[in-house]
Amino acid sequence: MTNNYCVILAGGIGSRFWPFSRATYPKQFLDFFGTGRSLLQITYDRFTKIIPKENIYIATNESYSDLVHQQLPQLKGSQILLEPKRRNTAPSVAYAAYHIRAINPDANIIVAPSDHLILKEDVFLEEVRKGLDFVKENDALLTMGIRPSRPETGYGYIQSCDLTTDGIITKVKTFTEKPNLDLAKIFYESGEFFWNSGIFLWNVNAIIDAFHKYLPEIAVRFDLGAPIFNTPEEHAFIHQNFPYCLNISIDYGIMEKAENVYMLCIDMGWADLGTWGSLFDIADKDANGNTPLKTKALLYESNGNVIALNDPKRLAVIQGLQDYIIAESGNVLLICKREDEQRIKEFMADAQMKFGDEFQ
Amino acid sequence: MTNNYCVILAGGIGSRFWPFSRATYPKQFLDFFGTGRSLLQITYDRFTKIIPKENIYIATNESYSDLVHQQLPQLKGSQILLEPKRRNTAPSVAYAAYHIRAINPDANIIVAPSDHLILKEDVFLEEVRKGLDFVKENDALLTMGIRPSRPETGYGYIQSCDLTTDGIITKVKTFTEKPNLDLAKIFYESGEFFWNSGIFLWNVNAIIDAFHKYLPEIAVRFDLGAPIFNTPEEHAFIHQNFPYCLNISIDYGIMEKAENVYMLCIDMGWADLGTWGSLFDIADKDANGNTPLKTKALLYESNGNVIALNDPKRLAVIQGLQDYIIAESGNVLLICKREDEQRIKEFMADAQMKFGDEFQ
Repeated sequence: MTNNYCVILAGGIGSRFWPFSRATYPKQFLDFFGTGRSLLQITYDRFTKIIPKENIYIATNESYSDLVHQQLPQLKGSQILLEPKRRNTAPSVAYAAYHIRAINPDANIIVAPSDHLILKEDVFLEEVRKGLDFVKENDALLTMGIRPSRPETGYGYIQSCDLTTDGIITKVKTFTEKPNLDLAKIFYESGEFFWNSGIFLWNVNAIIDAFHKYLPEIAVRFDLGAPIFNTPEEHAFIHQNFPYCLNISIDYGIMEKAENVYMLCIDMGWADLGTWGSLFDIADKDANGNTPLKTKALLYESNGNVIALNDPKRLAVIQGLQDYIIAESGNVLLICKREDEQRIKEFMADAQMKFGDEFQ
Repeated sequence: MTNNYCVILAGGIGSRFWPFSRATYPKQFLDFFGTGRSLLQITYDRFTKIIPKENIYIATNESYSDLVHQQLPQLKGSQILLEPKRRNTAPSVAYAAYHIRAINPDANIIVAPSDHLILKEDVFLEEVRKGLDFVKENDALLTMGIRPSRPETGYGYIQSCDLTTDGIITKVKTFTEKPNLDLAKIFYESGEFFWNSGIFLWNVNAIIDAFHKYLPEIAVRFDLGAPIFNTPEEHAFIHQNFPYCLNISIDYGIMEKAENVYMLCIDMGWADLGTWGSLFDIADKDANGNTPLKTKALLYESNGNVIALNDPKRLAVIQGLQDYIIAESGNVLLICKREDEQRIKEFMADAQMKFGDEFQ
């Protein structure tokens, strides 16, 4: 239906995947699996099966404008929403909503990250259709929930009002932030909690209403430009006003507070490629549990390592390592324990501070 | 004195230092310590203090001809002895001897590797003078021995007939190959055994005689060209005949068998930079015992590692590693335990076999 729209969030800097993901070339633009398509392209391709091509938007940082154009040359310039500053996902969602509303006030929108792996794509697309139909009829903020397979501390959780079965839409009782391990174990064992996939569906008026209610400072800023959206003046308006937006996620700013949040629980073979650990979990492994990601490697007495050298010509020769991340890209070689990967942001910050921006 | 000559052996492929040392650019040509001079240049500089410049020869593989010229532009072409094939040190020594004899049958020669660190250079040069005087008067094969500081399994040993004090020349009882650890401990504790430094002195007739006696197949081959040495035909003769030479070390082929072997034991602050381990022993360490060799590095919970990234712009970020070698050069990244470094040759061979010559 031509009232269906998709917004792909592709502005992240991917610091948890440093150094593979760099400020100037973050992970959504990388051909992660060596398939010839980047994560962004894979996400775009996925949505073209269900959303009209001209209704697909990419929300990204303006420094990635060229990259997006190169990777998705079929997009019109107006389909790339360029943000002058990083302000997390809530302002991105708001900008897209205001823009799309100016084009079509009856729009139903699915907002999705650009770095997810979805293996059961047919199931996913079917559920997306179901979800878009639901939000067309209901002023609901709908999220896609995943039944947890482990006490993961890297995702937010959604507590359902009902112990759902797959494919049912239920009201959400609680929307939580990333838990610590103890809490994650409780969530996992309860059967009531689901991973927040970060994929959201709503009609455009419902989300703009939610902004007015829960993030009015953002709404009021975009309201200033309400007549400017989808005109040649939009770019200058955004350049001027977007930086004023609060730096906040849509999850924390709205989903955790709103009262009309619903969940569609689905089993779509989903993985959030947000961390090296998640990649390790899903990628193919050799007989010793190592994951050489598109990397030529010789491994001796080594187990459970992720090896990712961005230069395909380079050979990694590794002996006697257990459970490390070995990642190299550009001017950085990182070796750290898989269990300590949450410190990668700290390493990146230290690198930038001690040696300069070119190590970001 | 103009009868004194020096031959620097610089044809090695440095496989134990792979990947830092590459077949196309082995370690003797690297600026190992970031001083602006390569190991070869440092060795050359050292000998110019005692040997006339025109009497210094470099024996090397013909593929390194340009490198040697670039690094030692003051040499005449005739001072670079180019070998078409690698045949270890005995043929190199023979070639140099026959060439120098054709120039000066009264020559006294010191033969030295190009990858040694000698910290007490004044002591060294004084002992070299002493040694050259000795071989001028005696048909002896003189070697420089080092009092061992540990039960090293990476060097050959020399058993002296006397428990020597430094600076004395004694007759050698035994000249051994690299021992295993048990034997090395015995040698170390005995007080009679000294490290074979691989630095040799002899007069040119003594060494050619030794070849006739102990490696006659090599001598007879060079005898074929006796009138050709030091003429324009020498190059073609060597190109044709050198490949026939047995692939054997001077230590094994002659020193271990001859009966006129003598040793000069000296304390010259010596290290053979033949292995990563030796480098680790001598290089500066940070507070955690890590050795980042001219490499930008951030180290977290890591101790006892050697880090050598040949690209000076690259940053190494290392967390949770104890006692590893992390070395990168060109198209190879190597990570292995320091204690297993003797397997590096095996890794290099596997890399070449599995992925091709460009990984050699």
